[in-house]
Amino acid sequence: MTTQPTELPGLSAASSLDLLRQRAPLVHCLTNDVVQGFTANTLLAIGAAPAMVIEPREAAQFSAMADAVLINIGTLSHRGAEAMMAAILGANQAGVPWVLDPVAVGALTYRTEFALSILPLKPVAIRANASEILALAGEPSLGRGVDSSDDSLFALPAAGRLARDYDTLVAITGRVDFITDGERVWSVADGDPLMTRVTGTGCALSAVVAAFCSLPGDRLQHVATACRVMARAGRLAASASAGPGSFAVAFLDRLYAMQGGDLQ
Amino acid sequence: MTTQPTELPGLSAASSLDLLRQRAPLVHCLTNDVVQGFTANTLLAIGAAPAMVIEPREAAQFSAMADAVLINIGTLSHRGAEAMMAAILGANQAGVPWVLDPVAVGALTYRTEFALSILPLKPVAIRANASEILALAGEPSLGRGVDSSDDSLFALPAAGRLARDYDTLVAITGRVDFITDGERVWSVADGDPLMTRVTGTGCALSAVVAAFCSLPGDRLQHVATACRVMARAGRLAASASAGPGSFAVAFLDRLYAMQGGDLQ
Amino acid sequence: MTTQPTELPGLSAASSLDLLRQRAPLVHCLTNDVVQGFTANTLLAIGAAPAMVIEPREAAQFSAMADAVLINIGTLSHRGAEAMMAAILGANQAGVPWVLDPVAVGALTYRTEFALSILPLKPVAIRANASEILALAGEPSLGRGVDSSDDSLFALPAAGRLARDYDTLVAITGRVDFITDGERVWSVADGDPLMTRVTGTGCALSAVVAAFCSLPGDRLQHVATACRVMARAGRLAASASAGPGSFAVAFLDRLYAMQGGDLQ
Repeated sequence: MTTQPTELPGLSAASSLDLLRQRAPLVHCLTNDVVQGFTANTLLAIGAAPAMVIEPREAAQFSAMADAVLINIGTLSHRGAEAMMAAILGANQAGVPWVLDPVAVGALTYRTEFALSILPLKPVAIRANASEILALAGEPSLGRGVDSSDDSLFALPAAGRLARDYDTLVAITGRVDFITDGERVWSVADGDPLMTRVTGTGCALSAVVAAFCSLPGDRLQHVATACRVMARAGRLAASASAGPGSFAVAFLDRLYAMQGGDLQ
Repeated sequence: MTTQPTELPGLSAASSLDLLRQRAPLVHCLTNDVVQGFTANTLLAIGAAPAMVIEPREAAQFSAMADAVLINIGTLSHRGAEAMMAAILGANQAGVPWVLDPVAVGALTYRTEFALSILPLKPVAIRANASEILALAGEPSLGRGVDSSDDSLFALPAAGRLARDYDTLVAITGRVDFITDGERVWSVADGDPLMTRVTGTGCALSAVVAAFCSLPGDRLQHVATACRVMARAGRLAASASAGPGSFAVAFLDRLYAMQGGDLQ
Repeated sequence: MTTQPTELPGLSAASSLDLLRQRAPLVHCLTNDVVQGFTANTLLAIGAAPAMVIEPREAAQFSAMADAVLINIGTLSHRGAEAMMAAILGANQAGVPWVLDPVAVGALTYRTEFALSILPLKPVAIRANASEILALAGEPSLGRGVDSSDDSLFALPAAGRLARDYDTLVAITGRVDFITDGERVWSVADGDPLMTRVTGTGCALSAVVAAFCSLPGDRLQHVATACRVMARAGRLAASASAGPGSFAVAFLDRLYAMQGGDLQ
């Protein structure tokens, strides 16, 4: 039902990145407590603008001013869920795209119910690891915490079904990333294992996906570019790092300096 | 009504910085979720001590033990507002100075009402960008998110009025910073655009302003010194950085190593 | 009543560290808002896995899946206390060890009452500075904020009593660390003053203590190893740093690269 995964052409990625830099989209992040600083710094480094507004009565108002909204349920709370719902409704009303990062869905009941309840509210993209995709699609998952034990290729059929059922894009990330709209599939084989030794690289990617979803044009290409840019920055940073501390620093520097030519 | 802006003399800044290092003030920060770590690390690097106490019933008790209190409304919540109010009342009762950072005021209704409601509670200083100052002063603002689109010089008359009306000091920061009590005006023309690519440099400056406000002597000079020290550290760090990741690291190192002589 | 403090043998520390790396324990951290990112990055650097789940209805469920739980009351809130209680009960029911970091206990009423109320719920270890240990043990403390003014040796008798009364282990950290079960005492004399200029090194140590508490074998040795590994990484990092910014980066790199041989 879906085509074979193909590597996203470097020229396409370069043009999506250029567009992001021109537009500098404002991303309203309702994200988890652990990664807020790193998420904001990642958006700033790549050329977008972050803002976190968490009070329910402000979240809807701010969603309508933003270019994209991120919903990340990593440290979901009752009050946070209320703010997320307000932000989603505000975004939908204003025609602002929103992206879902369903952290640890499947492993915990409350967030699983919440994630399933907002799926029909039309996220334009979902960024998750294989376990989380399987859980969202209602298939058995091995999920424990945030590290994916399944392989992203194994979850690709479930991702395709999710994409078709909810008319959305799905990015499954892992050693190889797959980005699909349920028909076409782009793959990104890049990155470095050191990325998993720094908290929030996946969460920050979801924020970057949201930034790219605000751009006009081929959204699947834009989302694949988000994955590609982050993975490339990760590989370049890892090659010049002594460990996860220097890696995180180099990662932000590389994102900031990333040019279209680096994506070939 | 206000005098011409003048560059703060290096010797004055050096003496304020020396005093801060001797006293190592404890700053109680009620600040936004995104910048807590960076704010604490900035205070530690410069020689102050941070503490974040957020439960309303503890906030008042702790304000009275601190040397200064910071109120930053970047991720204002209902519960947070309650804690801030308790902290302000506790500080005022104990004679502890408090500083306001009215993040994104004007752009969002709830925080604008909150900020206006605490203005009469006598902050000793307000640190904000031009948009926020205009909004606080009741003038039309272009505010969208946290980046200022107005120029700080344009907002200087409004800052002067605010300072006089509320008997406070106002630091407007931007490419050039202006620090005024409504009569005198110090300017700080330093820093680097890379500072805007790291989240929380403005928020951390507000915490540093609070630390300096705890010192005896000429408070306007102390607040201008806070702006000067941060801007100088920013420029020195930028000159040795490959991007925002290495900049943030070098910024903390430079703050830590900053000597009076660096401020000449 | 307790034996003389002895330096933990390097071989014992090396074998505890090896065991941690083999098991890569999942640590459920209910910790303060300021240090979440640094705590997660520290656990990842040393070879453990962090997860923060804060909603009360999820906290108990997740505790039972984790290998250890950390309770840090640095930014205790009403809602946070509820989540902590749920996490503790979930952990106890599932036989998962939990560790207490009683930040600033003694200085503030609400958290002091909370800390005393959970002490009988059987933490397997307590990691604190001297002021906090004295406060927990019901002795006069000088506590203001998070910096300890008492010396860790002075608090050692109180730590021994706490350990015996609550059948737990106590790690008092300071210039020298002492780790005791109320009979044996290990000491760790290492580290660097620069560690106190980075927020969260103590809080992150408590998370690492929790990770080590999940290991089979001599738990006192494991907890002493946690202190030793962190202090050694601190000293190695400080020797190659220009200030607290580069220190924090080097610290994570050193933790990641730490080998048994480095602990001799």
